[in-house]
Parts: sequence; C-alpha cells; structure tokens
Amino acid sequence: MQTIKQRFQVEYNYAVFFTQHLFDTQNPLLKDFFQAYTEQGFQRKALVIVDEGFEQTQPDLKSNIRAYFAQNAAHIQLAAEIISVPGGEACKNDPSQFDKLVEAVDVFGIDRHSFVIGIGGGAVLDLVGYAAAVSHRGIKLIRIPTTVLAQNDSGVGVKNSINFHGKKNFLGTFAPPVAVFNDLTFLRTLDDRDWRGGLAEAVKVALIKDQAFFEWIEEHATALAARDEEAMAYLIHRCAEMHTDHIAGGDPFEFGSSRPLDFGHWAAHKLEFLTNFEVRHGEAVAIGIALDCVYAHKIGMLAESDLHRIIDVLTKVGFELYHSKLAENDKINLRNGLQEFREHLGGRLTIMLLEKIGKGVEVHELDADIIAQSVDYLESSKIIPA
Amino acid sequence: MQTIKQRFQVEYNYAVFFTQHLFDTQNPLLKDFFQAYTEQGFQRKALVIVDEGFEQTQPDLKSNIRAYFAQNAAHIQLAAEIISVPGGEACKNDPSQFDKLVEAVDVFGIDRHSFVIGIGGGAVLDLVGYAAAVSHRGIKLIRIPTTVLAQNDSGVGVKNSINFHGKKNFLGTFAPPVAVFNDLTFLRTLDDRDWRGGLAEAVKVALIKDQAFFEWIEEHATALAARDEEAMAYLIHRCAEMHTDHIAGGDPFEFGSSRPLDFGHWAAHKLEFLTNFEVRHGEAVAIGIALDCVYAHKIGMLAESDLHRIIDVLTKVGFELYHSKLAENDKINLRNGLQEFREHLGGRLTIMLLEKIGKGVEVHELDADIIAQSVDYLESSKIIPA
Ligand SMILES: NC(=O)c1ccc[n+]([C@@H]2O[C@H](COP(=O)([O-])OP(=O)(O)OC[C@H]3O[C@@H](n4cnc5c(N)ncnc54)[C@H](O)[C@@H]3O)[C@@H](O)[C@H]2O)c1
Ligand SMILES: NC(=O)c1ccc[n+]([C@@H]2O[C@H](COP(=O)([O-])OP(=O)(O)OC[C@H]3O[C@@H](n4cnc5c(N)ncnc54)[C@H](O)[C@@H]3O)[C@@H](O)[C@H]2O)c1
Ligand SMILES: [Zn+2]
Ligand SMILES: [Zn+2]
Repeated sequence: MQTIKQRFQVEYNYAVFFTQHLFDTQNPLLKDFFQAYTEQGFQRKALVIVDEGFEQTQPDLKSNIRAYFAQNAAHIQLAAEIISVPGGEACKNDPSQFDKLVEAVDVFGIDRHSFVIGIGGGAVLDLVGYAAAVSHRGIKLIRIPTTVLAQNDSGVGVKNSINFHGKKNFLGTFAPPVAVFNDLTFLRTLDDRDWRGGLAEAVKVALIKDQAFFEWIEEHATALAARDEEAMAYLIHRCAEMHTDHIAGGDPFEFGSSRPLDFGHWAAHKLEFLTNFEVRHGEAVAIGIALDCVYAHKIGMLAESDLHRIIDVLTKVGFELYHSKLAENDKINLRNGLQEFREHLGGRLTIMLLEKIGKGVEVHELDADIIAQSVDYLESSKIIPA
Repeated sequence: MQTIKQRFQVEYNYAVFFTQHLFDTQNPLLKDFFQAYTEQGFQRKALVIVDEGFEQTQPDLKSNIRAYFAQNAAHIQLAAEIISVPGGEACKNDPSQFDKLVEAVDVFGIDRHSFVIGIGGGAVLDLVGYAAAVSHRGIKLIRIPTTVLAQNDSGVGVKNSINFHGKKNFLGTFAPPVAVFNDLTFLRTLDDRDWRGGLAEAVKVALIKDQAFFEWIEEHATALAARDEEAMAYLIHRCAEMHTDHIAGGDPFEFGSSRPLDFGHWAAHKLEFLTNFEVRHGEAVAIGIALDCVYAHKIGMLAESDLHRIIDVLTKVGFELYHSKLAENDKINLRNGLQEFREHLGGRLTIMLLEKIGKGVEVHELDADIIAQSVDYLESSKIIPA
C-alpha cells in the first residue's frame, strides 16, 4: 500500500508591546488587546499567575489587576482567584507548583480560548508557559515579564520549561505566546544583581550579531550599571527585536543542532548547577561568554583587542568574571558540562565561538586543555583591575 | 517604543508507511528510514516503549526488536532496556507511567535527535507521544500503532495526551510524529471489540467527507465484521489518508473552534466517562454518531433513508447503538456532557451534524429536549432487528 506523505505548516503571530504602568486603568493597551479578541457567542476568561517575589515589592498589584479587569469586564472575565507562585528557580523545581496551576485551569474553567497570564521573572514565566502549553493541549499565553532578562530575552521567545529531578529545563515545550507586555516601571524594584543579569544576554546577542549594538553598550555601560532607565529601555527593545528576528529567521523550534543564542551558555549552565543556582543565570552567562572568548583568543580565532573590549564591558556593567567552582576538581566538572550540554541538545556538538565582535562562528569541538587554560586566564585576570 | 511584531511558520513532515512483519530482519522499511537519518558526527539512539497488552500476544516481540536493531547498529543504537507500559486507559490515568518514561529518557541519554518509539494502542501512543513531546522540549517520535483505531485515526494524527485527576486528555500537546509504521499483521491478535472499535472512526470520516467511501463500507460491512484483512487494509489506508489530508488542509493545531473530526464525539466522551471506560472509545463513538444522526433527522436536517443506512451499517459491523447510561438521571448527564465538551474545546460551542451522507455541517447549539428524544429513539429501535 502506498506510503502517505504528510506535510503542513503552522503559523504563529504575536506582538511584544512596550509600556509603563500597564495596570493603570488609564492605560488602554491591555484593554485594546482583549477588545480585539472579542467574538460573539462567548466570553473569554483570564487566569493570572503572579511571581511572589515581584508581588512583595508591589503591594497594590492584585488590587490594581482586579480594578483593571473589572473595568473591562465586557471583554474579559478574570478568574475568581489570582494565583501566586514562588519566584526564582524554586518554582521550576517543585512539581506541586505545576500541579497547582493545572488544577487552577480546571477549577476556573480556563479553556483553549481563554488566556493564562504570567507575571514575573524568567523562572515563573517558564513554569506558567509550560502549564499553559500542556493544559487542554495549549491555552493562549500572555507574558508580562518583570526582570531585565525576561523582558529582553526569555519572555519574548518561544520556549518554556520546568526542572525534573534536579535536571534543569528537562521538561518543556516550544509554545509561542499570543502577546508579551514589557512594562519598564516593573524593573524599578529589582535588586542590582537581577537588573544586571539581563545585560549579559544583551552583550551576548550583540557579540554574535551586531557590532554597532555592542559599541552602544560600551558607550552606555556606566549608565546601565547606574540603573539609567532610558538606556535600559533602549537596550531591552533592541535585544527583544534581535531575539524575535533570530527566531523568525531561522529554526524557531530548534529542529536542527545549531543554537547560536546559546553562545556562552554551555559553561553557564554547568556553573549555575555547580553553585546550586546561587550564581544567577545572567551572572553565569557573563562568565560563560568571557570563558569562550578567552578560548577563541587562545586558538587564534579572536583578536586580543576584541577580547579586552569584551572583558572590559562585562566588568564595567558589574559582572565578576571568575568563580572558584570553575576550577574545582581539576576542571573535570567543566568537561562534564560540555558533555551534558551536548546531551541536552542532542545531535552533533555545536558551540558558538566568536570570530570578532559582531560575528559568531560555530565549532564542533572544544579542547579540554585549552578550556582549562582559559579558566586559569580568568582566574589570574580577576586580580588585574579592569 | 515601537511594538515588535513577530510572525513565523513551522513546517512539519512525516510519512505513514504500510507494511507487514515490520520487525522481520528481512523487512528493510525501518532500516531504510534510520539510514536516511544517518549523519556524520553522532549516532542516534532509540528508546522503545511497548504496550503490555500487545506484548502479551507476541511473546517474541522484544527479542525480534533486539535482533532487528542489532542488525542495524550502524545506523541506530537501541537503549539497553525496552520499556513496557500497561495497555489501555490505565496508562493515561497513572502519572507514575509518565514519570517512568521521562526517567528512561534521562537514564538512557535520549536527546532531541534520538527517537522515542511507541508500539501499542491509542492509549499507549498518547502517553508515549506526550512524554516524548515534553522531554527536552520534544524528542523525535515514531508511532507503531497496533489497534485499528490507532492505525486509522489516532496514530496518524498530531495529538497526544494523558488524563489528569480523572479528566480525560486534560494534559497534552500537538506534536506530529516523524514517522508512523502501520503493520497489518499486528491486528491479528486484537479481540473483536478492538478490531471493531476503529470502524466507528471510519464511518465517522466517511459520513462527513466521502459518500463513496461510506458506500464502500456498506458493501464490505460483513467482510469487515468477519475480520477480512484485505478489506481492513483498504479501510485503514483510506481513513489514514483522509485524516492526514484533513489535518494538512485545515487548522492542524486547532487554533479555531471548528473540529469536524469530533463528529459524534461529544456524547461519546461522556458515555466513556459514565461507564468508567467500560464502553470503549470506538463503541462510544458509534453510539455518538447514531445519536447525532437521529438528532439531525429530528430537526429535519437529515433524510430518514440516510439515517437508516447509517444505523444499518453501524449495526452490521457489530455495534450496539444504545447504552442504558445514556438515559440515566433523566438525561441530565448528557446535557452536562455537552457543556463539558464546550469547556474542553473552549470558545463557541461547535458541533458537527450531518446534512446527508458525505456532508457534515456545523451548528452552534443543540436542544436538550431533542437530545432526550433522540436517546429514546435509540432505546426503542434497539429492539427492532436491524
Ligand atoms: N525560556 C527561555 O527561553 C529562557 C531563556 C533564558 C532563561 N530562562 C530561565 O529564566 C530563569 C531566570 O529568570 P530571571 O533572570 O528573570 O530570574 P528569576 O525569574 O529567577 O527571578 C529572580 C528573582 O527576582 C524576583 N523578581 C522578579 N521580578 C521582580 C521585580 N520586578 N522586582 C523585584 N523582584 C523581582 C523573583 O521573585 C526572583 O526571586 C531561569 O530559570 C532560566 O532557565 C528561560
Ligand atoms: N491522540 C488522538 O488523536 C486520539 C484520537 C482518538 C482516540 N485516542 C485515544 O486512544 C485511546 C483508545 O485507543 P485504542 O482504541 O487503540 O485502545 P487502547 O489503546 O485502549 O487498547 C485497547 C486494548 O488493546 C490492547 N492491545 C493493543 N494492541 C493490541 C493487539 N495488537 N493485540 C491485542 N491487544 C492489543 C491494549 O493493551 C489494551 O488493553 C483512548 O485513550 C483515546 O483517548 C487518541
Ligand atoms: Zn540565557
Ligand atoms: Zn475518536
């Protein structure tokens, strides 16, 4: 009998909006969004899930949300309860948080044409995105990121995940949101480490794709470190744009082996794990970038002047570029990290290195001795003032 | 700041192969498939998961699989263990089965470029498909369906799911396989109820889309009931073709409210639930089709002659078209069923009814009294010999 060949395409659309004071009843952005979705014959519902770490800094958050939705009840019906989940990696590690969200979907009758709205850092958005993606085979997801990293990187992309038995991001899906709302004012309450964290992803994307943007970051490094909001607004917008362009232009659901946006990430993942997530994602990425740039320089790929500029800008915005866990156990951990990275991605090992500022290039192996020498370089250069 | 508009497409391709004696070392089909996937630089792995109900009827299954893979070790590396899971709804109800599969993915180092291969009925394939879809954000899935329903319907489609707190299919994703292998000889050990079950889906798809195919089923009803393999081979191929065409031609991931392939399914889902899955899916669908056809006749939509032909063909292949649970509690259960169906799908209630054989039409409400009368009709007509 003849083989049946199946082939089809699925199209995804979403917008990333930039605003301030999203839940101010005078701000029409969210209202207009729901209004555009209004259809005859049924009313859409919304289940809102909030990052507790964010909530604690915004005592009026839930009442503002209720007031905003009450005003727009003709277009959208808020579920009776606004759910809170712990912020940070904890929520991705605890399976009962996932269960709690799926139960809420059931209890509040949230269907595939309703919205799940996640408000929080990258970790909470990853959890909420996963729960929404697998409940009823996918409920419409709105992301409202509240950290720099979530606004310029994770929150505008197409991935979600939770951890499984301590394995980072082991469970997840590719599931684009229907909209992302970036509110600059939400970043005011971030502590300095989380304000800074997202800057590593900006340096990353500039390095592999856009020299001019790297130079802009160099010029504004001091302002960014001093929490200048205008500079941050531009940085987030530019990153979000490059990130979404990258997704649309390439292989959105990563069917192939190439993952350029994981530049600097293989060592970062291992370092997060080795420090039990005490080193945060952005901080680890900064170290990962530095390590891979030293490596690229050592193999004669990257000019020394470029390496110095990269290390300078990372240091200027406030990152430390060495951690003692990097050298522990005679660097054997890092070697394992490379292997784990390959296994998580699968396929042929593919690592992005830097040829020059603004231009990445993929390689398929790294030399363990040169990795070790690169760690030594970072260790010794940390005592030299930047 | 300017809104960023994201838009991209994701393309999916897969083949449905038809064969006999798939794991015979002389059969090159599977080998050729893996060979076509061979790439330099890494070896792909395969984790095989088998339906225990099927396995019990095929004492040599696991050793045949091992022999087949051993012969093709250059192209594919079989994980050390072949995993067994209980067949039928039990595996979708028990969360520890899902955990077991995800753990196996971890333990055996199955990455996104490896294959998870599910062998079994629709329930096992739903569980395996879900576990594969969410592990590492999606491992390549091969389905080897072993029931009629799985070969002609569920196994060739794009959905997976497990149950959550007794809620049928509450967790799941849309995740196309990379290939489906339908082996006719695997159907020989099915009990009569499961042989017959898949015929209801064939009648369903014929009724809404293809009069000629319905007539073919009418002509071969006796042969099909008598387990004629040649007739079954044709029926499965034609259904699989219509099913994949439907997916590719419309809204593969069901972003809209229309779900024509759910014809006959709203009452079926409720009946499965009310009988604690004692009535199997295909049996319930046969009753659901009959009920909605009686309804369509009662509202003047479907001619009486068409109704009789439909009831005749369903009866001839061996279905009972009434179940006492349909009438229990003054039919209040069925009314709930309609509401639950709407909630699961969300959006506007959209039910496919029949205008004539070969042509469905969507409606947005059903009248509870006429549903009740339709139940009465089925109850009384069951005593009239077909
Ligand atoms: N899905 C993706 O594509 C992707 C990409 C990169 C990273 N990530 C994930 O993102 C996570 C890291 O996210 P993150 O860097 O946003 O940190 P985070 O989510 O871990 O949040 C850090 C802390 O900040 C708190 N917080 C959040 N918003 C706040 C605010 N406005 N004011 C004060 N406190 C606030 C949180 O409660 C938490 O305690 C990791 O789990 C990582 O795996 C996902
Ligand atoms: N994903 C979808 O699109 C989709 C569509 C329709 C139905 N389904 C699901 O499919 C399931 C029903 O599937 P099904 O009808 O294939 O039944 P099933 O998977 O429940 O299997 C029925 C029984 O047959 C046994 N079995 C399987 N193959 C056998 C063989 N060759 N010989 C002997 N015994 C065998 C199983 O162990 C089980 O006990 C339901 O869970 C339903 O929700 C999914
Ligand atoms: Zn990152
Ligand atoms: Zn069905």
